[in-house]
Amino acid sequence: MTAPIPPRPHVVIVGGGFGGLFAARALKRAPVDVTVIDRTNHHLFQPLLYQVATASLSPGDITAPIRWILRRQENAAVLLAEVTGLDLSRRTVRLDDEKEVSYDFLILATGARHSYFNHPEWERLAPGLKSVEDGAELRRRFLLAFEEAERSEDPARQRALLTFVIVGGGPTGVELAGALPDIARKAMVRDFRRIDTRTTRVILVEAGPRVLPAFPESLSTHALRDLEALGVEVRLGQAVTDIGADHVKVGGERIDACTVFWAAGNEASPLARLTGAELDRSGRILVRPDLSLPGHDEVFAIGDLAHVTSAGRTVPAVAPAAMQEGRSAADNIVRTLRRQERRPFRYVNKGDLATIGRHRAVADFGRLRFTGRLAWWLWLTIHIMYLIGFRNRVTVLIEWAYAYFTYQRGVRLITDPAPPAGMRA
Amino acid sequence: MTAPIPPRPHVVIVGGGFGGLFAARALKRAPVDVTVIDRTNHHLFQPLLYQVATASLSPGDITAPIRWILRRQENAAVLLAEVTGLDLSRRTVRLDDEKEVSYDFLILATGARHSYFNHPEWERLAPGLKSVEDGAELRRRFLLAFEEAERSEDPARQRALLTFVIVGGGPTGVELAGALPDIARKAMVRDFRRIDTRTTRVILVEAGPRVLPAFPESLSTHALRDLEALGVEVRLGQAVTDIGADHVKVGGERIDACTVFWAAGNEASPLARLTGAELDRSGRILVRPDLSLPGHDEVFAIGDLAHVTSAGRTVPAVAPAAMQEGRSAADNIVRTLRRQERRPFRYVNKGDLATIGRHRAVADFGRLRFTGRLAWWLWLTIHIMYLIGFRNRVTVLIEWAYAYFTYQRGVRLITDPAPPAGMRA
Repeated sequence: MTAPIPPRPHVVIVGGGFGGLFAARALKRAPVDVTVIDRTNHHLFQPLLYQVATASLSPGDITAPIRWILRRQENAAVLLAEVTGLDLSRRTVRLDDEKEVSYDFLILATGARHSYFNHPEWERLAPGLKSVEDGAELRRRFLLAFEEAERSEDPARQRALLTFVIVGGGPTGVELAGALPDIARKAMVRDFRRIDTRTTRVILVEAGPRVLPAFPESLSTHALRDLEALGVEVRLGQAVTDIGADHVKVGGERIDACTVFWAAGNEASPLARLTGAELDRSGRILVRPDLSLPGHDEVFAIGDLAHVTSAGRTVPAVAPAAMQEGRSAADNIVRTLRRQERRPFRYVNKGDLATIGRHRAVADFGRLRFTGRLAWWLWLTIHIMYLIGFRNRVTVLIEWAYAYFTYQRGVRLITDPAPPAGMRA
Repeated sequence: MTAPIPPRPHVVIVGGGFGGLFAARALKRAPVDVTVIDRTNHHLFQPLLYQVATASLSPGDITAPIRWILRRQENAAVLLAEVTGLDLSRRTVRLDDEKEVSYDFLILATGARHSYFNHPEWERLAPGLKSVEDGAELRRRFLLAFEEAERSEDPARQRALLTFVIVGGGPTGVELAGALPDIARKAMVRDFRRIDTRTTRVILVEAGPRVLPAFPESLSTHALRDLEALGVEVRLGQAVTDIGADHVKVGGERIDACTVFWAAGNEASPLARLTGAELDRSGRILVRPDLSLPGHDEVFAIGDLAHVTSAGRTVPAVAPAAMQEGRSAADNIVRTLRRQERRPFRYVNKGDLATIGRHRAVADFGRLRFTGRLAWWLWLTIHIMYLIGFRNRVTVLIEWAYAYFTYQRGVRLITDPAPPAGMRA
C-alpha cells in the first residue's frame, strides 16, 4: 500500500447484496469501522424474485433491511444513499447529496443490470427482473394480461394477451417460463368467465443451442423435456429481432404477444466504469487474483460487478460466488492489516441447482447429477436455508405450503406502478 | 319499477369493497347475472391497512383478488375497469375504455376518499390511508424519515425527521399513533448508529374534544390515557392550520415535523355526484330507507358512498354497516323480482372495537364496555375472522405472532414510489 493505514481503518462497502453483506459480516471481529452504502434499504434474495413476479411471494418475504441484518455488528453502520462518484486518488466516494465519504478500503459490490444488446428501447417493452420494483412490475403485467383478455371482445387480441414470451434460457428464464403454465392452468382457471386460461401460451426463446447453458448437457436436455411437458414452447438457437407493444419477432417469425419478459444478458452496474479500471465485454471490472483493482490494493470489486478468474476459469455470476468473494475480500483486508500476504481467491463450486416447476428441477454436484422430485425438494430446502431472517423463512415456507397443497398463488395483487400525481413527495 | 324487468336481470355492482362484495355474495342463488366492476383487481381489508403503513403486514396479506373470492359463484363475473360515467335514464355505466355496460339493477359501492377541507395542496404533504398504494406510501415515508435522520448531521433537522404528526383522532389516527412509539422504541432501537430512535415524537392532533368520538366518553378517556402511556402527545380541540414540507401549524403553534399523516375527514367517491342525487355535506348520496336512490328504484348506494339512516340515526361509516347494507340491497333486488315489498334497511350494531397498541384496546358492546388485554385479544380474533381467505388468515397470524414475541416488524421495506422511467408501459 502506498498510503499509510490509520489505526482503525474505515472500510466502505458499496452494495448490500450477497457480496457486500458477506464482506461486512466477515469483518465483524476485525479492528475496522465498516460502512455499508446501498441505494435501497434492503437486502434482496434475488434467487426467489421470480416468485414475486409470479404472485407466489410478497416482496417483504424475500427482503430484509440491511441495517436490521447488521444490527448486532457494532463496528458496522448502514447508509441509505446512492454512490454517484468515485475518487480513487483521494480515496472518497461521492453520494447523491454531494457529500463525500472517505475510505481506507473500498469494496464495490453493486451487481449488474440487464443488457438489451444495443436495444435500450426494449427495456420498456420487455422488463427484466433485478429489483423488488421489477418483481412487482412483472407481476402487474402478468396479471393485467389476463384481466385485459377478459375485458376484450376481440379473439385475436385475447390470444395475443394470453401469449407470454420469455427471452433468455438461463435459470431465471427457465424458472419464469416453468411457473406460468401451472398458474394459468390450475390457479386461475375458475376465476374468469369469458376466457379459458388453459389456452395460455408460454414461449421461451434462447439464442444459444440449449437452455441452462451453465449446466452439463444432459441436464439441459432434461430441463428442456420438463419445460415441454409443462407446455412451454421452447425456441432454441433463435434470436429476438424486434419487440413491439403487441408482438415479438423471433428469427423472422412474428409472434403476437402482449407480454414479454427479459432474462437474457447482464451488464455490470455503471459504477464499474467510474473506477477507470479495465472492463470485460459485460462491463465487469477485471480484478486481480486477490479481487483488488490493478494499481489499487485498497479497492476491491466482487460479485456480478467483477470478472473473477479462479483456477483458470471465469467464476460464474451466482450468489454463492458473490458470498465467497465477499468473504475473501474481507479476509484480504484483515491480512493486509496484519501485514500478512494476501491470498488469491479460490472459487469452491458447491453445486448448481435450477428449478423448472412442481417436482421438476435439475441438480449438478460434479459427478453427482440428478433430476426430478429429489432435486426439487433439495432446491426448496437450500433456498429456505439461505434466506436471511427467521421470519422470512417461516413466511416463505407457509406460502410454499399453500401453493403446494392448493395449487393457488397467494399474492395476486396488482398495484399501481406510480401513485396518484398528488401523492408524490 | 317503470321499465320491464327481463327474465334474467343484470345486476351491476360498482366497487369490490365490503359493501359490493357482500351484495354480490348475497345474490349467489338469485336468478340474476352479476357483474362486479372495480378499478383494482383486489378486495382490500381496510381495517388492517394501517399495519401495512407501519411495516407489520405485507399488502398481499390483506388483499385478495375479487375474481378469486367470487370464483365459485357462477352467476358472477368481475371486470377490472374504472367507471367514468353513469346514465341512469338509459341504465348504463360507462367504463374508462368508453365501452358501456347496461344494467337492470345497479349497486353503487365505491366508498370514500380523504377530505382535506378545502386544502387540496395538503394531500401531497400529508397522505391518507385508503388504498394499498397509500399503505406502501405511508410505510415509505415513515421508514425514510429514520433513514434521513441517520444521514443528517444537523440536530434540528434530525429532530424534525423524528417527529411524526397524525391528524385525526378516529380509529385510524389512534391506531397509527399507537403503533409508532413501540416501533421506534423497540423494533428499531438497535439498528441505527447516529440517532437514538427512542427520542421519536408522535403527536396526534384532533380538532374535536376527544379521541374516538364514536365511542362512549369513558372509553375515549381510557384511549387517551393509553396513548399518553405509550408516549403519544395528544392535542385535543386543536385544528391544523398549515402544513409544510418540514412543519405543521397546530392552533398557532409551529411544530417542526417532516412526516404528517392524514386521518381526518372523508369525502364520498366522485361517482356520487354523477348520479345527480341529493348529497350530504361529505358528498354522500342521501338514499331512501330501502337504500335506493330517490326516483330510481333500480339504483342502490351503500357503504361509505351513502348517507343511510336507521332508527332515526345516521349509520356510521364502518365495515360491518357496509356489509349489512350490501346484503340488504341484494335482498331488496330479490324481493322486487318476487314482487314482494321491499324492506327498509335496519342497522344492527354488533359492537365497536378499536386498538391502541399492544394489550391496549377499547370495546363497546352497548351496556358491556371493557378495555385492556381482553379487548385487545378480542380485536385480534375478530379481525382474523373477518379477513377473507384462509391464506391471509394464516399469514397475518404468523406476522402478528412474530411481532408479538420479537417486538420486531417484519415488512420494513422501502420501495420506489415509481419505477425507473424506462420501465413504464
